[in-house]
Amino acid sequence: MTLETVKQDFKSHLNKISAYQEALGLIFWDLRTGAPKKAIENRSEVIGILSSEVFNLSTSDKMAEYINELNANKSELDELTVKMLEECQKEFDRNRKIPEDEFKKYVILKSKSESVWEEAREKSDFSLFEPYLKELVETTKRFVGYWGYEGNPYNTLLDMFEPGVTVKDLDQVFGSVREAIVPLVKGIEKSTVKPDTGFVYKHFPKASQREFSVHVLKELGYDFDAGRLDETVHPFATGLNTGDVRITTRYDENDFRGAVFGTIHECGHALYEQNIDPALTGTPLSGGTSMGIHESQSLFMENFVGRHPEFWRRHLPALKEYSPEQFSDVSVEDFIAGINESKPSLIRVDADELTYALHIMIRYEIEKGLFNNEFEVSELPEVWNKKYKEYLGVVPSNDAEGILQDVHWSGGSFGYFPSYALGYMYAAQFKQAMLKDLPQFDEYIANGDIAPIKNWMTEKVHRFGKTKKPLEILKEATGEGLNAEHLIKYLEDKYSALYQLERAK
Amino acid sequence: MTLETVKQDFKSHLNKISAYQEALGLIFWDLRTGAPKKAIENRSEVIGILSSEVFNLSTSDKMAEYINELNANKSELDELTVKMLEECQKEFDRNRKIPEDEFKKYVILKSKSESVWEEAREKSDFSLFEPYLKELVETTKRFVGYWGYEGNPYNTLLDMFEPGVTVKDLDQVFGSVREAIVPLVKGIEKSTVKPDTGFVYKHFPKASQREFSVHVLKELGYDFDAGRLDETVHPFATGLNTGDVRITTRYDENDFRGAVFGTIHECGHALYEQNIDPALTGTPLSGGTSMGIHESQSLFMENFVGRHPEFWRRHLPALKEYSPEQFSDVSVEDFIAGINESKPSLIRVDADELTYALHIMIRYEIEKGLFNNEFEVSELPEVWNKKYKEYLGVVPSNDAEGILQDVHWSGGSFGYFPSYALGYMYAAQFKQAMLKDLPQFDEYIANGDIAPIKNWMTEKVHRFGKTKKPLEILKEATGEGLNAEHLIKYLEDKYSALYQLERAK
Repeated sequence: MTLETVKQDFKSHLNKISAYQEALGLIFWDLRTGAPKKAIENRSEVIGILSSEVFNLSTSDKMAEYINELNANKSELDELTVKMLEECQKEFDRNRKIPEDEFKKYVILKSKSESVWEEAREKSDFSLFEPYLKELVETTKRFVGYWGYEGNPYNTLLDMFEPGVTVKDLDQVFGSVREAIVPLVKGIEKSTVKPDTGFVYKHFPKASQREFSVHVLKELGYDFDAGRLDETVHPFATGLNTGDVRITTRYDENDFRGAVFGTIHECGHALYEQNIDPALTGTPLSGGTSMGIHESQSLFMENFVGRHPEFWRRHLPALKEYSPEQFSDVSVEDFIAGINESKPSLIRVDADELTYALHIMIRYEIEKGLFNNEFEVSELPEVWNKKYKEYLGVVPSNDAEGILQDVHWSGGSFGYFPSYALGYMYAAQFKQAMLKDLPQFDEYIANGDIAPIKNWMTEKVHRFGKTKKPLEILKEATGEGLNAEHLIKYLEDKYSALYQLERAK
Repeated sequence: MTLETVKQDFKSHLNKISAYQEALGLIFWDLRTGAPKKAIENRSEVIGILSSEVFNLSTSDKMAEYINELNANKSELDELTVKMLEECQKEFDRNRKIPEDEFKKYVILKSKSESVWEEAREKSDFSLFEPYLKELVETTKRFVGYWGYEGNPYNTLLDMFEPGVTVKDLDQVFGSVREAIVPLVKGIEKSTVKPDTGFVYKHFPKASQREFSVHVLKELGYDFDAGRLDETVHPFATGLNTGDVRITTRYDENDFRGAVFGTIHECGHALYEQNIDPALTGTPLSGGTSMGIHESQSLFMENFVGRHPEFWRRHLPALKEYSPEQFSDVSVEDFIAGINESKPSLIRVDADELTYALHIMIRYEIEKGLFNNEFEVSELPEVWNKKYKEYLGVVPSNDAEGILQDVHWSGGSFGYFPSYALGYMYAAQFKQAMLKDLPQFDEYIANGDIAPIKNWMTEKVHRFGKTKKPLEILKEATGEGLNAEHLIKYLEDKYSALYQLERAK
């Protein structure tokens, strides 16, 4: 067989894996957006069979042959094939260590757990979800055993979402962010500035919130010919292919912020996936390079664009059209003060920009503790509530607003949460670098001219998909490695101004 | 390997095929109900890959081994395994004759053709669709060449939808139905009875039509925990599994009949799929036994239930709630007369119960002609219009209301249309037999007590899935073979009464 033939067969093999993943992506989207209840039982079987096939194709002897053959001729390969090869090898090495039947059981477990979690959350009853979470944690621990780890078992899980980041890094970086946030939170508590947020909680009909969300998505460059907006319990964006990147959101008729900022957040994720080089479609490189970089895109959109004062100078009039009574008396300044109110709270996704990181640190510490056998799944509600008291000074009154609030664990995602905080740092670093190329940043926002901003991100981040590693993208775009100082400075500037805080020198 | 092991492996193999088909079913549903435009290109690749995998699994050497092994031990097999074996063998024998690459191209062609058809129909431009239809016909002719045929090449296509039915049967049966319909249509033309249909065309908002459709579906026993209702250009029902049978409908704000009777029609299909024995899930036996029997279920629901005078004595008050102005002055008698108006028309799906069969006969004759090389695809608009003039006395003024109106050909379905007329006959035969067991039929409808009717159908038809052949089901349920007389008598009775026609003796 010629090398050219091997390359072609390898490519077809990857196309097949990608096709199954696209079908699975649609199935998951459908399960969350409106599949009937009784569909789930057999659909879980379908998920099991398809995932198991993906697993087989990624770990098959055939794949081993491709990897060996291509590695033996690596110097003759084009760059793209090398990247695909490396991606496959990483996946191969990781998956080959898990017995097929265990993996299949795990996939079915995940699918069922998500449904059970939804029910448990509705009923605010952790005991319903507990046995599933326990099995998920045990399975994941067993998998870490198969994979091995360096330093800390949790490092292996972190590496799946943010290659190269370790518990040691996070303890350090999270430490310095915490040191900056805590005095700000205390300062805000003592500040005499108390933004009026009455308008936030006024009734805003779901249908109108949806219309406004669509309006904003269009302004931000989200391509509706390559996506759609639906409603779910837990909002997400999913890229089935670059021509089909779907967003979901959640509408609270008595607090429009969830839907509006949630939609803008998911829009950031979606712009990433819509703008990956289409030449990568059907390969394992057509996706975000890491969860942290992905999150940097959503947080950039949410905080640096969506909470920008100029953004609301432009969009408040439109918002007033969709809910006239609610906003008629609200000035732009009051609106900006109101939507940027910072106050310790219980629900992560509703948290403000400043205290959000504390929610992440709690989850990080819980996951780290779980995988270092510091406590059991059954103790989680207690541990959770204790940490909320300690970090944020608030205590959940039930499981739904505590331990059951996040979908992640029900999908087996452990090690994912820290990406949110890393995304914050990346986003602040991108913003810093972008300002050098686009000094008129504020003006673009004021004029609704988002294209230069989007194009910068596409040029520096989106288009590469997984052809570059997270720190490679960061370095090339900003000239630096991971650096928390830009985020810290941004938060200090912003909240000192909003709450007229004295700056410690 | 023991026979037990072979059976288990065979079952797993079938589960896999069924899982891929379920994923494909969801993909098709999604493409028709709201997938973004740019999704299509890569989604077509996904469809191609998955379908090709189904094809491979159904025609693999592995399948050949199962078939041989099980056939060699047929006497020791349970009945269900025998049925599965026979179903697989039929599929195997048919598919093995088509080269894999041709099949894959065909599947991709079908998927693209459906999109092109939608566009062509929107623009009312047959020339857009013509090259695709030409390729579909040529491919199908080539396939018939691979499969072989007896008597007439079109018989092979008929057999795929209604095993055992031939051109000879249809020429005869359609002949006698036509002989009965033509005098009725002429009588109605001359009748002085002219039902007032003004109320039909009054504005009925889409959202309210949807609500009424949901109301009716619930009354008819459609299980919303095992399905959902969406909107499409061409309404359909699709059974992904028995716990997920989805219905779509089309809303015309100036003619509510399409949505209401369309929904009731699709409900009949859906009840069939929702009530197949769940033990058959994951096997090739979990589906309707033939297109004709499937259509008998939808037409039974639409005509014998949904157009029953007692049905509207019960439901007109509800309809008045959803569109008060439209129906306020309409009596039940006027309503029944209005919705049963018979008048030659252009669009099949909007045709009345009496002239509907003529629409089918036109399509039957066109398909028969195409596959007997009597005319070319390019001549179809002309042939179509000529036949409409001849049979119904009406001529389409454009392609959208003529040759482009049906989705079927764009999906490669040739030989399907006759099932609609067969379904009519079966339905009338089932009704006749049901009356013997349920003489209070009219009363049940009057009281909205559909359960006994639905249960009779489940008992006699639904639950068997494909474990019984169409004529077997018909014979066991009615004691007869195919018999057009019940349908003819029903139509004569109904329309003679509605239009006060003199009965020829």
